[in-house]
This record gives sequence, structure tokens and C-alpha cells, in this order.
Amino acid sequence: MPHFLDTSAADFETRFTELLGMKREDSPDVDAVVAGIIADVRARGDAAVIELTEKFDRLALTPETLAFSEAEIEAEIAKVSPEESAALELAAERIRAYHVRQMPEDALWREETGAELGWRWTPVSAAGLYVPGGLASYPSSVLMNAIPAKVAGVERLVVVCPTPGGVVNPLVLLAARIAGVDAIYRIGGAQAVAALAYGTATIAPVDKITGPGNAFVAAAKRRVFGKVGIDMIAGPSEILVISDGSTDPDWIAIDLLSQAEHDESAQSILITPDAAHGRAVVAAVEKRLETLERRAIAGPSWRDFGAVVVTRDLAEAAALSNRVAPEHLELCVEDPDALSDQITHAGAIFLGAYTPEAIGDYIGGPNHVLPTARSARFSSGLSVLDFLKRTTLAKMTPAALKAIGPSAEVLARSESLEAHGLSVRARLAALNEGDE
Amino acid sequence: MPHFLDTSAADFETRFTELLGMKREDSPDVDAVVAGIIADVRARGDAAVIELTEKFDRLALTPETLAFSEAEIEAEIAKVSPEESAALELAAERIRAYHVRQMPEDALWREETGAELGWRWTPVSAAGLYVPGGLASYPSSVLMNAIPAKVAGVERLVVVCPTPGGVVNPLVLLAARIAGVDAIYRIGGAQAVAALAYGTATIAPVDKITGPGNAFVAAAKRRVFGKVGIDMIAGPSEILVISDGSTDPDWIAIDLLSQAEHDESAQSILITPDAAHGRAVVAAVEKRLETLERRAIAGPSWRDFGAVVVTRDLAEAAALSNRVAPEHLELCVEDPDALSDQITHAGAIFLGAYTPEAIGDYIGGPNHVLPTARSARFSSGLSVLDFLKRTTLAKMTPAALKAIGPSAEVLARSESLEAHGLSVRARLAALNEGDE
Repeated sequence: MPHFLDTSAADFETRFTELLGMKREDSPDVDAVVAGIIADVRARGDAAVIELTEKFDRLALTPETLAFSEAEIEAEIAKVSPEESAALELAAERIRAYHVRQMPEDALWREETGAELGWRWTPVSAAGLYVPGGLASYPSSVLMNAIPAKVAGVERLVVVCPTPGGVVNPLVLLAARIAGVDAIYRIGGAQAVAALAYGTATIAPVDKITGPGNAFVAAAKRRVFGKVGIDMIAGPSEILVISDGSTDPDWIAIDLLSQAEHDESAQSILITPDAAHGRAVVAAVEKRLETLERRAIAGPSWRDFGAVVVTRDLAEAAALSNRVAPEHLELCVEDPDALSDQITHAGAIFLGAYTPEAIGDYIGGPNHVLPTARSARFSSGLSVLDFLKRTTLAKMTPAALKAIGPSAEVLARSESLEAHGLSVRARLAALNEGDE
Repeated sequence: MPHFLDTSAADFETRFTELLGMKREDSPDVDAVVAGIIADVRARGDAAVIELTEKFDRLALTPETLAFSEAEIEAEIAKVSPEESAALELAAERIRAYHVRQMPEDALWREETGAELGWRWTPVSAAGLYVPGGLASYPSSVLMNAIPAKVAGVERLVVVCPTPGGVVNPLVLLAARIAGVDAIYRIGGAQAVAALAYGTATIAPVDKITGPGNAFVAAAKRRVFGKVGIDMIAGPSEILVISDGSTDPDWIAIDLLSQAEHDESAQSILITPDAAHGRAVVAAVEKRLETLERRAIAGPSWRDFGAVVVTRDLAEAAALSNRVAPEHLELCVEDPDALSDQITHAGAIFLGAYTPEAIGDYIGGPNHVLPTARSARFSSGLSVLDFLKRTTLAKMTPAALKAIGPSAEVLARSESLEAHGLSVRARLAALNEGDE
């Protein structure tokens, strides 16, 4: 049974705070191991990467075989069914169309003083995308990370993907090909992150590393942060559904389970003003769990972290959802637009009964890399902005410097930064001489 | 003498790589101490903050006196000269005008399938700004951090600023007042960061923490990252000037020193195709250093990390500058716009001889919180975006789900995520039944 809360109960606030504070993940502390691996790759480059790949992935590589060859990629891609290939192409097209709209605009304007101000966006030169191997090797994640990078204009985009025992998911290679990835290295773990950040003789360093990974990958990303940029460190996934009772309880049950089946640490929450509907959803979840392929994962997730919260009304439901700041928020209500206006913190909103969250995972267009663990309070999903940076521009004229320079001098003096003031003073002195 | 490099020398590449890789900062490892302080503040709240403030700042506080009172703020502000007050007001007005233009737009569009897609920006609810005490307590930094937050729409904005021995900079309080800060707490160090991140009985927690600080503050920000958002971890400051020889060597000398006077670890680099001009700038720096108030700081910085690089032409200068990815870039050349087009990585560009970098520090309008240590390769200066987050929106219609849902099912199956596929299948089944 999931947690069952009611806002009219006396202990509600205590129980809801507990729900918010629940620790769902116990990451092993692998930082010392990771530090050693990074130091090794920095010192010995390819040799270290090859040794560690042999050790962890039981795969013997040489500098020449670190990357998949064109022929290998073609051979793997040939295994993909036409149906899967078409689905990937459609997903890529829709993701690209959505992200193209995110491209921010440059700006440049002239003020009354004659000064020109503005900014300019430019892409990072090179990016590396981590793709997990094995069970969690998702082609959809390749598209979601690689396409925004390419739309942003990243010149060199490479993928690292471990292939334990040499086994690779052909769909991952096809997704990389469709997204325009330039090279795919069959390496993983902290050694792959280190190779991307510092470079080796074979692998040129990148400026930004994105993509999900296990505890070793997460620790390595934290460690190389600063040397390169990284995306967020993702935690276990969450979904929150607000339902007014107008949606089939079975649909909502499956939506809750589509999060729960990811991970035993995933969390699925239903908030509804309709207690009977809440109970119906719980019953529907139990029924679906009887036959679900991944019930061994989804079951514990639902039992340990699942929750149903009964509220007075939808406004209260929205307020509670804002306290959760969920990664995914489904609004299964008659007027989802009106309710959406009350949402201040959420990674992605899925409006109405015909928008299951899974649409967003694959094919809707918006990114599926979203802020977890309540970080939607202060951060956003992956976008083209993660692969761009902004350079500010300022160009003074003599008249502009005369107009605002003296105030800069005053402030420089108040901060005891003499040279700052002098840099303005020397120019103003020359300009005033010229005026005489 | 600074480093003097010439791109036509045989050892240039080696020496330039050394210059790029120079370690300028040896941060003490204070992580264990900081971890203890954070745990203490989480456990004991106000009591811990008060004890630590007494210990580190020699200041006895109570929960009631943690924040400055209105009367205290008024009394301090009264000490500010009208000239300084006017300069701060002008700076605030210009910074606000620049940052208002950064506000990103929401988007919502309807596709051919009938699906609606888009996104919406919302502000973080509460932000905390760290302001160092003592020598580096810069009112300009208060404006540069607080104004973007307010422009973004942050509802609650608080400042923490240690006041060792009870001494405060009245200009800092005035800057906070002008920027619309809601409360100012006289606490600092890791304890202040912990109080902002986790909250105490007196200090409500925030969602985002920005602002510069010493090694303890930086370590604390790294530790609370994830629980709250943080801005960048700033390293020592840098300036790079590209000059074609058309600018007075003394002006360039002062500009280089305006960076060097910040910190012995700051770095000032001149790149010029005119070797004689380069030597003239070096001579001018030496001359200015004889009398500069902060020569004890600027001298070592220039001697240890300063550099002059002579290039074949301006195009080569731009290419080298892109490898440095400087925080501040001055283009003291006849046609700065043309050269600016060749710049791909820089935090801020100052165009032409009448735009000393100090204008950007105080009053130009763009933010002075900029990416250091070559991180302009992948990150940007502070902006309103740091205080906003984006929620993606997707709303399918039955027709849209019929159009793209089957492809989502195919991809879900290929990733062995059955419930993902079922969430689409159940809806499509109902829709198809309805059609019959």
C-alpha cells in the first residue's frame, strides 16, 4: 500500500513534510575510487582508459578500436527494424522542431549616451554525451541530449557508451547517427568522463559533458565540474498526477506505474480532491501490478514511495504540488489550462487526460531530461541553453564615457580600487584636454 | 617582468600552453570543517549560527538581532555621501535597464496534429545573496546579484553579510536597499550558507544562493548544491586586452592593473601584433606600479601571472584569446566590431579604447559576475536566467495522440518499459472503441 494522506487530517502537515523529506536514494560513496581513476586517466591517457575498460567491461580495446568504425556502426544499424527506425526518426524530428524554437536571440542597442550595449550567444565548441550501457541504455536519451547540442551549433559532439562484454544496443547507435553525433567511443564509467574532460591521445577533450549515469559517473561529473561544464546530477525520477476524478482510474494507475517501473527509488504521487477516485486508482495500480513485466521494480517503488493525497479542492492540490516541485506533473482535470496557471514549480507539465507522461519521454518534443528531487524549484530541463553561453557587449563613445564615467570613478574610490578609477580618469582627462 | 611570448618563437606553443595551464590559486581544503559547520546549523539552527558568529566574527547576536533593523539600516545609510548615493542609484538604474531586456519569453503553439506545445518561465521563490565582509565587501556586487533576482521576479531576496567586530560598510546596506532586498542578516561563512540552504527558526530557507566568498563559502556552496541552486564558483579574475597599437599604452597599462589590483592571483594579458607597443605597455605598467595604492597586490599579480603575447596579426590574436576564453576581453583596436565577430569564447567584451573594463564593473549595465578560469568556454555571466526556471508544456488532443502515440509505444517497447507503452495503448484503445 502507498502512503495515504488527507489534508483534513490533524497529522497531515507532519506526514506531508515527511513525504517531502523522504530519502529515496543511498548512493554509495565512490568518490575516492573515482578520484583515483581520474588521476590515472590524466596521467596515462589511452593506456589507462583501455586498462580500466578491460577491467570493468571485460573488453579488450586498442587506441584504434576505442571508437566504433563506420562499418561497425552500419552493421549494427542494419539490425534495427524499419518500425523502430521510423519511430526514432519521427521522435528526432519532433524534438528538433521543439528545440529550434528555444534558440535565444542576440541583442544590441544604442543608448541615448551613444553607448552600445548587448549580448551575443555562441555554442560550446565540443560536447560529450554519456550514455549508460546495459539495461538503462536508452536511445531516447541519446536524442534528448544530442539534438539540443546540435541545434545549439556544437561543432564536435561525441558519445561515450560502455559495451560490457562488447554488447551494444543498435538503437543507441542509430539514435546517435540520426542526431548527428561525430564519434562514438565504447567506454564508460569515471574513466570515460575523465577522458572527455581532460582528453587523451585518441579522444580530444570537450567543454561540456551531459547525460545520465551510475554513482561512479555522477561522482566523476561532480569532480570534473569547473574544468568542463556539466548538466544536472539526476536523482531518482518522480511523477505527480493531479486528478479531479474525470479520468479513468486505470489510465492514471498506468501513468503512476510508468514512473515506478524505472527504478525502485522512483516516486509516484496522486493528488485528488476525490477520495473515492483516489481509492479506485490504488485498486487499479494493484491490478496492473499483478501482470506488469517490471513489477519487481514498480511494486517496491509504489509500496515504499507512492502516495495518494486527498485535498479539499484543486487549488489546494496545486499548492501542494508546488511544494513538491515535481519533475513530471500530469493535470488530468477538466480544465488543465486553468490549473496549469496555478503551478509555479514543475519540470514539465502534461495537460489533460490524453497526455500521458510517456509521450514526453519519447516523442512530444520537449526534453525528457528534467530536474529531479525537488530541484524544479530552481532549475530547468535540458535545453539548447545548456550548450550555449552568452557574451555581454559594451562599447562606450567619448560622450558616453563623459556621461557615466565619473560615477564609475566614485564607486571605484568607495571600494578602494584605485586603478579602476584611474582607467576612467586617464581617458576623461585626455577627452577634456581635447575639448579645450 | 611579466611573461613575454612571441607566436613566431619556436617554443611558443609550449609556453602558451603553460600559460593556459597555470595554477593560480591554492585553495585550502576546508571541506571537512565546512561539513561540520553545515551539520551543526542543520541540527541546532539559530543557536549554532549565533555561536559560530561569536567565534569567527567576534560578534554577540540573538535571534532578534540576526537581521539589521530598519532603524540600524537608516542610521548606516545616512553616513553615505550624496555623491556616492547618486552614483549607486545611477548604477542600479543602468543595471536594471540592461537586465530587463534579458527576460525570456514564454511560448505556446499549436501543431498540425492539434497538440499544443510550449514552455513557461517562472522565478525561483526565494534567493539568498552572499556578500563578503571586510575589504572585499563591494556594494557593486550587491547590485549585480540583487537586481537580476528582482527583475526575474524573485519574491523574497535576502542578503547575508558578515560584520566582523560589528563593522559594516554603509554602502552595502544602501545598495541592498536600492536593489529591493527584503532582509539583511549580519552573518557570514559556511554557517550563513547553511542557514540559507536549510533555514533556521529565524531565517527562512531560500531556493538559490549566489554571490562571491572565501574558501569556506565556496566549499559550503558546493556542499549545499542540489538542496538549493547556486551560481558559479568564482576563481581569480582575469583580463585580456587585444591592442593594435592605436591606444595610449598608459591606458592599457592601467586597465591591466585594474585587474591585477584585485588579487595576487589575478591575471592580466596583453596580446598585440605590435611588439614595440607591447614593450611600451610593459614600461607603462612599471611606471604606474611605482605609485599605485595597491601595488603590493598588483605587483606580484603582474610579475607572476601577467603576460604579453606578440602575434603576427589580429586574427591570430583573436584565435589565441579564444583559447584563453577570458572573463574580461578589451578590444582596443581601430575596428573593434570586426574583431569582436572573431571572438567565440569570452565572458564580456569591451569594445574600443573608450570602454575600460572598470565601466563594466560598475555602471555599464551588463553584469560583472562573469565566468573565470577559462569557463567562458561553457558558461555565462550572471543574468535574470539564473533566477528563473522553465517548465515545459505539452497537451495532446485525441487526434494528436493517435498520430504520434504509436511511435511512442514502439520506442517504449524497444526500451522494455511496458507501462510507458501501456499508458499510450490504454488511451488509444478507448479512442478506437469510441470511433467504432
